Amino acid sequence: MNSDKNRDWKNKLHEIIYEADTPVGKLFDVVLLIFILASILLVMLESVNWIDARYHYWLNLGEWIVTILFTFEYIARIITVKKPLKYIFSFYGIVDFLSTIPKYLSLIFMGTHALVALRALRLLRVFRILKLARYLGASNQLASAIKASRAKISVFLFAVIIAAIIFGTLMYLIEGEENGFTNIPKSVYWCIVTLTTVGFGDIAPQTPLGQFLASIIMVMGYGIIAVPTGIVSAEYTRSASDREKKKEPEKPQLNTQSCQNCLVGNHRDHAEYCYNCGHNLHLE
Amino acid sequence: MNSDKNRDWKNKLHEIIYEADTPVGKLFDVVLLIFILASILLVMLESVNWIDARYHYWLNLGEWIVTILFTFEYIARIITVKKPLKYIFSFYGIVDFLSTIPKYLSLIFMGTHALVALRALRLLRVFRILKLARYLGASNQLASAIKASRAKISVFLFAVIIAAIIFGTLMYLIEGEENGFTNIPKSVYWCIVTLTTVGFGDIAPQTPLGQFLASIIMVMGYGIIAVPTGIVSAEYTRSASDREKKKEPEKPQLNTQSCQNCLVGNHRDHAEYCYNCGHNLHLE
Amino acid sequence: MNSDKNRDWKNKLHEIIYEADTPVGKLFDVVLLIFILASILLVMLESVNWIDARYHYWLNLGEWIVTILFTFEYIARIITVKKPLKYIFSFYGIVDFLSTIPKYLSLIFMGTHALVALRALRLLRVFRILKLARYLGASNQLASAIKASRAKISVFLFAVIIAAIIFGTLMYLIEGEENGFTNIPKSVYWCIVTLTTVGFGDIAPQTPLGQFLASIIMVMGYGIIAVPTGIVSAEYTRSASDREKKKEPEKPQLNTQSCQNCLVGNHRDHAEYCYNCGHNLHLE
Amino acid sequence: MNSDKNRDWKNKLHEIIYEADTPVGKLFDVVLLIFILASILLVMLESVNWIDARYHYWLNLGEWIVTILFTFEYIARIITVKKPLKYIFSFYGIVDFLSTIPKYLSLIFMGTHALVALRALRLLRVFRILKLARYLGASNQLASAIKASRAKISVFLFAVIIAAIIFGTLMYLIEGEENGFTNIPKSVYWCIVTLTTVGFGDIAPQTPLGQFLASIIMVMGYGIIAVPTGIVSAEYTRSASDREKKKEPEKPQLNTQSCQNCLVGNHRDHAEYCYNCGHNLHLE
Repeated sequence: MNSDKNRDWKNKLHEIIYEADTPVGKLFDVVLLIFILASILLVMLESVNWIDARYHYWLNLGEWIVTILFTFEYIARIITVKKPLKYIFSFYGIVDFLSTIPKYLSLIFMGTHALVALRALRLLRVFRILKLARYLGASNQLASAIKASRAKISVFLFAVIIAAIIFGTLMYLIEGEENGFTNIPKSVYWCIVTLTTVGFGDIAPQTPLGQFLASIIMVMGYGIIAVPTGIVSAEYTRSASDREKKKEPEKPQLNTQSCQNCLVGNHRDHAEYCYNCGHNLHLE
Repeated sequence: MNSDKNRDWKNKLHEIIYEADTPVGKLFDVVLLIFILASILLVMLESVNWIDARYHYWLNLGEWIVTILFTFEYIARIITVKKPLKYIFSFYGIVDFLSTIPKYLSLIFMGTHALVALRALRLLRVFRILKLARYLGASNQLASAIKASRAKISVFLFAVIIAAIIFGTLMYLIEGEENGFTNIPKSVYWCIVTLTTVGFGDIAPQTPLGQFLASIIMVMGYGIIAVPTGIVSAEYTRSASDREKKKEPEKPQLNTQSCQNCLVGNHRDHAEYCYNCGHNLHLE
Repeated sequence: MNSDKNRDWKNKLHEIIYEADTPVGKLFDVVLLIFILASILLVMLESVNWIDARYHYWLNLGEWIVTILFTFEYIARIITVKKPLKYIFSFYGIVDFLSTIPKYLSLIFMGTHALVALRALRLLRVFRILKLARYLGASNQLASAIKASRAKISVFLFAVIIAAIIFGTLMYLIEGEENGFTNIPKSVYWCIVTLTTVGFGDIAPQTPLGQFLASIIMVMGYGIIAVPTGIVSAEYTRSASDREKKKEPEKPQLNTQSCQNCLVGNHRDHAEYCYNCGHNLHLE
Repeated sequence: MNSDKNRDWKNKLHEIIYEADTPVGKLFDVVLLIFILASILLVMLESVNWIDARYHYWLNLGEWIVTILFTFEYIARIITVKKPLKYIFSFYGIVDFLSTIPKYLSLIFMGTHALVALRALRLLRVFRILKLARYLGASNQLASAIKASRAKISVFLFAVIIAAIIFGTLMYLIEGEENGFTNIPKSVYWCIVTLTTVGFGDIAPQTPLGQFLASIIMVMGYGIIAVPTGIVSAEYTRSASDREKKKEPEKPQLNTQSCQNCLVGNHRDHAEYCYNCGHNLHLE
């Protein structure tokens, strides 16, 4: 009976932490999102010299609060899952661990710069919350349009890269080292900067011939920027009219249940058992 | 009888100032638009040192003319409305007040720089005239297309910002302070500059690895610029074909009537009474 | 009889010069196009100091050849038209005159720089040849798509300019003169540079707050670049599907006849008389 | 009998080298692609001074390995084709030859810089492998959309160039040599940089009038960037819906057979004889 209560308590905690169907579960996700964003803000502010110099104490305090809360969350996640090892070595398990550990490590390795990279990993945790984005009902159609045009955009970008290498090599030969095109990789980098219409201007052609070729590259880039846009636009229109024909309303997937046994998500709305491992989703 | 005439006179003035259905009302709006734009031009010219030095007298004169005209307009608006307090504390009431006051304040606080900000607020008054834009018949469809795709573009821009933070942090770690990436916020700022293909070039990656990552960011930015465009394009096509199916001509809303009592607009074409408060729109 | 032959000769010359339906007329237009482009090339090369220094003799010679040919063409145009005064004071008449005169003027006013501007006007003559573009059969549909979306794009660009003024003023207040934002017009110029994703980088925000606002401007610009593209795309799709429904093939307008009397173009394919003045198009 | 075996062996080698229908043929293409990319990487790395200084021995070795493999491939291609001369003087024959020769030439002409250009030609060989891209099934539809809108985009880009020349000349006259607009070609180059929203910033307008004109150019460029995108998008949508109507699935062309006699490709799936020269495709 005690074990049953314990299990019941675990189940409820699992629902709160891993799912977002219940009010408490939603609240948990929102609070977690705020803490993740706050932790990212701390990393960003700490990198600004004068802020770190002035408010070091408060930043440090905030970092400890976040770290301790993340620690509790990490432990809770391990406890409520049936197969803790599977969670620990899952993608999000590792991200959760690496988001929590840097502050503890900083006690051992004082002032190590590289820990910033570890702490920046916390941002990946946001994607866990992106399941919230489903509520917006917008990302589904968007995702399918991108998915449908992914292959075509890849082919296109591949062609862009080949063009960048060819024109980059030509610019290297025309402009030479004295005008900033010191080697072919740098020249290719310049060519990508130009083709994508970013145009930093840290390197710019100086010779008339180089400027002429650059003009061709730019006009070409201007012409081809149309292609990926056209593809996504057409795919999106197609997917929208397909849905209309089938009379399917644009239904956001509201179900955020996650199996306690195998951690798989995307269950059907009234699913009682996990479609992956057969585990009962509601009771144990 | 006298009171009736007075009321009649007020009604006519209300129609002229708040509506644009009658020729005089239209003329008033056009004249007001010209004065608002002139007042903005004055603010802009005054900020140019050599122009201010040379033509200070004329700029000052122009500013006083505009201020006095705005004052009369403000008073007229208060008089012709039935509930002056409601107008005074409405959004446009406050904007109208703040557009008029800076010149008077400059008499008290001589040479205060911050008054420029107040005066720039005048530009917000242009939106009041944007009801004129309805005559162009174009903004309606445009607005609905933007509205329909607003949620999707928000999701998309949110993803862009997350990407900017992740790549910005990476660039900070790769390039470091010696190459201009002095802290993470600045690095994220650079990343947004690059992803949106603006590319100022005040900060530019110097290390080969940084340039390689920058290339990936740019090509990615180039690929994803397609997404919002595709969405708006598809929504716009859909809304256009929807309208065609319903045989609804693209009808601009010509009615600019505004209730004298509660200041609500968007009345139906032949409405006699305000749909919001029941006030008679034409007589009193 | 002699007068008849003379008239006949005039008619043929008129057909050659003003129309492009006959092989000789087409040839004339192509030759003229080449000479216009050559004359533009001469203007461009002459502006390059070292080229002018070395090849001044040849550039001068070429300029004289072009000028003399343009003179003959101008005289021929006057002779073959029935109402020479109407041609002389028409838009193209003035452009033709101004394209021919600079070299003669340079004999009187030696070395005047401003004549370059006059000579650059020659480029406007290219538009006369753009009637040739009709043969490409592509510009018609393109033009109609642009025409249909012109009003909407205008409304949109107007909104962009208002945004540029508001954000430009804000940036002026935030960054101030010490960071290059010396006055509001310059600040608005910077804002347009940024919103259109051009990003020269000659002026760039230096303060954190300025960079934050700049980020918002850029992301906004990135989001709204979608709008005009979406509009044109949708209009173009609609006009294409409209044409398909009507089973109208995409027919380029091949007729380039021009009335000898009133200079009006765009006649129907088998028109015998000018729709504007009733003049016989083929005989006299 | 011996000759038969020899012919059989040749046929098999031909299938492996020129076609990609068999597993070995596919493997050959993939291996070749890797070597081409490796050879390009070697050219790029060699141009970086410090890498060349440190790893010159290994780069040289790699270059020799690639050269020798390309030599074997070149010889194999000549042997297996029935009309070797036709191959040698075909486009790809010349590219293959020029990709192989530079290292041998470097033995004769020591340290000639221009050989880099020849070696960069290797990249063109990638297009031979692009027949592989057909497997992606994506490039077909993409190519047809670009093809359909090619003429329209050309007309458009032509208009962009004319605009660039007109505005470039104007900017030259307004800004003059002291602000970097040293001559008209450079000014036109700047104008293309601006119209395409690249914006290097190596040249930027300094005078208020120049900045005003630049603003107009940018807003115009912003408005017209919509046109090519709209065209491609509409063409793509049309081609996609055309295909759907005809119930034709988007079928990638899987056949990569190439005639041993006349080198022509694009044979039908079950073709036994070359459609161009009647040569038997499978046997001899």
